[in-house]
Amino acid sequence: MEAFLACDWGTTNLRAWVVAENGAVLRDRNFPLGVGRLQAGEAARRFADEVRPAMEARGLPAILCGMIGSNLGWRAVPYRPCPADLASLAEGLRQADEQAWIVPGLICDGITAAPDVMRGEETQVLGWVAADPARSQGLQVICHPGTHTKWVIVQDGRIVRFVTAMTGELFSVLGRHSILRHEAAADDDEVFLAGVAAAGDGGGLAARLFSARARVVGGGADPAGTPSYLSGLLIGAEAASLPRLVDLPEGATVHVLGDAALCERYRRVLAMAGIFAEVHDGEAAALSGLAALFRSRQP
Amino acid sequence: MEAFLACDWGTTNLRAWVVAENGAVLRDRNFPLGVGRLQAGEAARRFADEVRPAMEARGLPAILCGMIGSNLGWRAVPYRPCPADLASLAEGLRQADEQAWIVPGLICDGITAAPDVMRGEETQVLGWVAADPARSQGLQVICHPGTHTKWVIVQDGRIVRFVTAMTGELFSVLGRHSILRHEAAADDDEVFLAGVAAAGDGGGLAARLFSARARVVGGGADPAGTPSYLSGLLIGAEAASLPRLVDLPEGATVHVLGDAALCERYRRVLAMAGIFAEVHDGEAAALSGLAALFRSRQP
Repeated sequence: MEAFLACDWGTTNLRAWVVAENGAVLRDRNFPLGVGRLQAGEAARRFADEVRPAMEARGLPAILCGMIGSNLGWRAVPYRPCPADLASLAEGLRQADEQAWIVPGLICDGITAAPDVMRGEETQVLGWVAADPARSQGLQVICHPGTHTKWVIVQDGRIVRFVTAMTGELFSVLGRHSILRHEAAADDDEVFLAGVAAAGDGGGLAARLFSARARVVGGGADPAGTPSYLSGLLIGAEAASLPRLVDLPEGATVHVLGDAALCERYRRVLAMAGIFAEVHDGEAAALSGLAALFRSRQP
Repeated sequence: MEAFLACDWGTTNLRAWVVAENGAVLRDRNFPLGVGRLQAGEAARRFADEVRPAMEARGLPAILCGMIGSNLGWRAVPYRPCPADLASLAEGLRQADEQAWIVPGLICDGITAAPDVMRGEETQVLGWVAADPARSQGLQVICHPGTHTKWVIVQDGRIVRFVTAMTGELFSVLGRHSILRHEAAADDDEVFLAGVAAAGDGGGLAARLFSARARVVGGGADPAGTPSYLSGLLIGAEAASLPRLVDLPEGATVHVLGDAALCERYRRVLAMAGIFAEVHDGEAAALSGLAALFRSRQP
């Protein structure tokens, strides 16, 4: 296989790997060049001027997934419909320049009248599926936590549908801009668990959220615990609601894919809700997906 | 009755009325002097230097309700427990100076392990109850929409419990600081109703909220409709969840108390959920409550 540059280029960061001919990762690095931090139209230039030189990858073919394929990125690549497997993504690859291919995102029917969409997680999820042949058999449920957590249903190796929950963004926005904002924060496991309990069945979230304020002003709780409480409450509400919204079959395992520490929080809260979950490395999955797509691109 | 100055002094604004000996309102005015806009410790001075002169109320006794009684206000006045009627509030009045009395807030058991709290709405709710003797009989359910919407259960003239939902704050914070932020906005009734429909049973709110984004990037909807959609979705989720959280009896009327336009939005969405609602003027209720409490203060 030809050596190549693989990039998971999201809203906040760009994660890059140089993969050698024998498949070994020669270099990997994060760049604070997420699409949300770029000026309009400058993605191509910054990729050429900053990413390629830093990765010592000036001449290499590159494959990119994530928000870089949105209309705020380098080139808008149309969403592909579900069901979708790696072959569907490969068909939807679009060239940003002679040496750069961008992976399409996915679109599916949503839980409301609106559709649901993803860009980047499809590559991680299908890369995770491709990493073990047993995962292409039957049903797999993947939870990819983050700013916009994705719950993804894979049937016989194809993503059939998914649901997005903006749990991470609620945590971030409420913690910075609402009455739940906090200057000092102390990570407190007991308070995290109180937040999980306060999530109840996940209904009435706007009311449950106010308890994060009332426990301080009415209950004398230390405001430094508010981030832990809010994290527990929001993940708890997701664990109580999303399995129903994605029709999680009784007894199904949830595969939590992504950042290790955040995945472990999800695994623990899902276990409290009676749902068995296993944690998997999101970066390895992204690289697996990008490598498979690079191999199948049409030159 | 002695003439007096009545103030509903909240987080954002201060609403003031001068009431004559015969009960007539001589003057009324809003001041952008909410507690959230004041420096620590300056409430007394600004009340004396700005509010009293502008209201031509220099020597008058004053009664104040709202966040001015919090630890961020003029003087911290302890919460009173529920059940509570106007007599309970009168017992809890505290003097901020020789000519100013502050109404206590209320605290009750919450829907989580944390308590729930209010400051200001208790005066409006009990003022509304006092304005018609029939309202002191049996059960009344009051919804007071706003930044922190209150659902209040009144039994035989006493507030027995309440639940707060931070619906208005979610609308404001998400509309300014999240991916749902909007530069241009067009009030669109059809889109508002689509948002109400997207609220479903109110569960999985973090997932339903993402539909406000996906309908634009995946469904081609005009982003100028996002505020209308978000408003419908959040009020719809509240209308689907809160009646259950406050154990609303089958067939009970909900009395929506507050700002006329916002109350009408709530009335309409509640009607769509099969709940009959009546709208009432929040300012008249506040003044009714403040007048009753002024009369019953201990000099």
